[in-house]
Amino acid sequence: MTTSRITEEAFRQVLRDGMPSGAALPFEVTTLERGHVVLRLPTGTGDLRPGDTVAGPVLFALADLAVYAAVMTSLGPMPLAVTTDATIHFLRRPRAGFLVARARLLKEGRRLVVGDVTIENEGEEGGPVAHAVMTYSVPPDRGTAP
Amino acid sequence: MTTSRITEEAFRQVLRDGMPSGAALPFEVTTLERGHVVLRLPTGTGDLRPGDTVAGPVLFALADLAVYAAVMTSLGPMPLAVTTDATIHFLRRPRAGFLVARARLLKEGRRLVVGDVTIENEGEEGGPVAHAVMTYSVPPDRGTAP
Amino acid sequence: MTTSRITEEAFRQVLRDGMPSGAALPFEVTTLERGHVVLRLPTGTGDLRPGDTVAGPVLFALADLAVYAAVMTSLGPMPLAVTTDATIHFLRRPRAGFLVARARLLKEGRRLVVGDVTIENEGEEGGPVAHAVMTYSVPPDRGTAP
Amino acid sequence: MTTSRITEEAFRQVLRDGMPSGAALPFEVTTLERGHVVLRLPTGTGDLRPGDTVAGPVLFALADLAVYAAVMTSLGPMPLAVTTDATIHFLRRPRAGFLVARARLLKEGRRLVVGDVTIENEGEEGGPVAHAVMTYSVPPDRGTAP
Repeated sequence: MTTSRITEEAFRQVLRDGMPSGAALPFEVTTLERGHVVLRLPTGTGDLRPGDTVAGPVLFALADLAVYAAVMTSLGPMPLAVTTDATIHFLRRPRAGFLVARARLLKEGRRLVVGDVTIENEGEEGGPVAHAVMTYSVPPDRGTAP
Repeated sequence: MTTSRITEEAFRQVLRDGMPSGAALPFEVTTLERGHVVLRLPTGTGDLRPGDTVAGPVLFALADLAVYAAVMTSLGPMPLAVTTDATIHFLRRPRAGFLVARARLLKEGRRLVVGDVTIENEGEEGGPVAHAVMTYSVPPDRGTAP
Repeated sequence: MTTSRITEEAFRQVLRDGMPSGAALPFEVTTLERGHVVLRLPTGTGDLRPGDTVAGPVLFALADLAVYAAVMTSLGPMPLAVTTDATIHFLRRPRAGFLVARARLLKEGRRLVVGDVTIENEGEEGGPVAHAVMTYSVPPDRGTAP
Repeated sequence: MTTSRITEEAFRQVLRDGMPSGAALPFEVTTLERGHVVLRLPTGTGDLRPGDTVAGPVLFALADLAVYAAVMTSLGPMPLAVTTDATIHFLRRPRAGFLVARARLLKEGRRLVVGDVTIENEGEEGGPVAHAVMTYSVPPDRGTAP
């Protein structure tokens, strides 16, 4: 069963309600299936760091957003799910342009959900520019309380 | 010998020259010694996530900036030093207000520099809100080329 | 209050009861205070890897053991506390001889306990040979059930 | 081109020559292709921890070995390649029996090689018991010197 338990609109509403920095990211949702999310983010000169590559925090924010969405494809809207740990490896120089993040869930526990995500430069070969693993903690009340 | 090999002004120049998102962060430099950096960042409502805590990517950006500065206290200005891996643990709910990041270097190698950083809510007890470990790769030409 | 909630003998009993590989490690307990543990492990030729340095899994096992003990200094005997994530950085070449692991707790939550640990070659300067951060999950029944 | 640049026998020789703890692991090599390695390890009562699950350090050692082999499928025999960082997530309770580790390379750089690995209990559904990401540093002389 691969139907997502959250719609794109409901996910965007979670961001608008409580996470303005996420809502402000101009991302597109390419795939939203249970345990599997693909986001696409345009980046430009404001996102760069020395060496004309996309800054690490931009990649981190995209990775975090993709896994946050993936968690909700499994558990439904759960704004209060929080990242407890995140490990990101920067693998190649990411260039400005479209970044594509593909997240999948590795574990869907009652208390902890773990996912990983690879980020690629759209249309470029050579492999991912970043890989991240992230754990989200599911609140005891499943995060639905305000 | 604890004298930093980069001044605050030179560090800010590195950001202005190539990393607009870092230059835009309204941080203060509290300590800048060799291998030891303390930054202080005000946060507000735009930085929050559901639960009224500071969003993870904001903490990541601050941690990354503090270790980036710490690397340059040891090696001098080196804009092209790049993060190769980063692991962050979110420990407590960070509230809006001043965040204080304390970075130290654990290893100063010719090719890799490793540091860790703890982030606290200024004036609050109860321990750090986040801890991160990060590796920076030193470019073969030591990052001084444009 | 810094009194450990587990004695060295009770910690060794936890290992003998359920973790023969831990019980078999010839470690000494140097410090066992609440949230703070120091272990000392002799290593020899059987622990080496190419380059005549101590193999990574030996360092990982020591780091894991030190944080496992640290968790129980806070929570009391809790054999079923389990590692959920661990990140280790290998910083310098560890030589055979005594390794000293110093663990501290960064967060003592009801569900997750996070600690970090540095490992040094006893009697050598130049900084730690490894640093690890680890999360332990506290079972709902606090791990006291068989 | 997927042909491994190291044979199983050459890999075992690297372990016998310099890493007795790796050579002592009773693993089988199921797949050895360029950038892709599958190892199979029997585990028994000596490998357990409280809760009758396989101890974390055993999983770490298997993950490390699989990525070490994967590095050499790309670079050829390179005993002195060393792990610089490793992050492992323990996802489900691993039971004694055969563990299967599948490693792939995410980046094959001149200085750093990054891979990840998933470990499963053979014949069980429900997803991986562990996931790890590891970086190996390639020595300047490519690790062939004694």
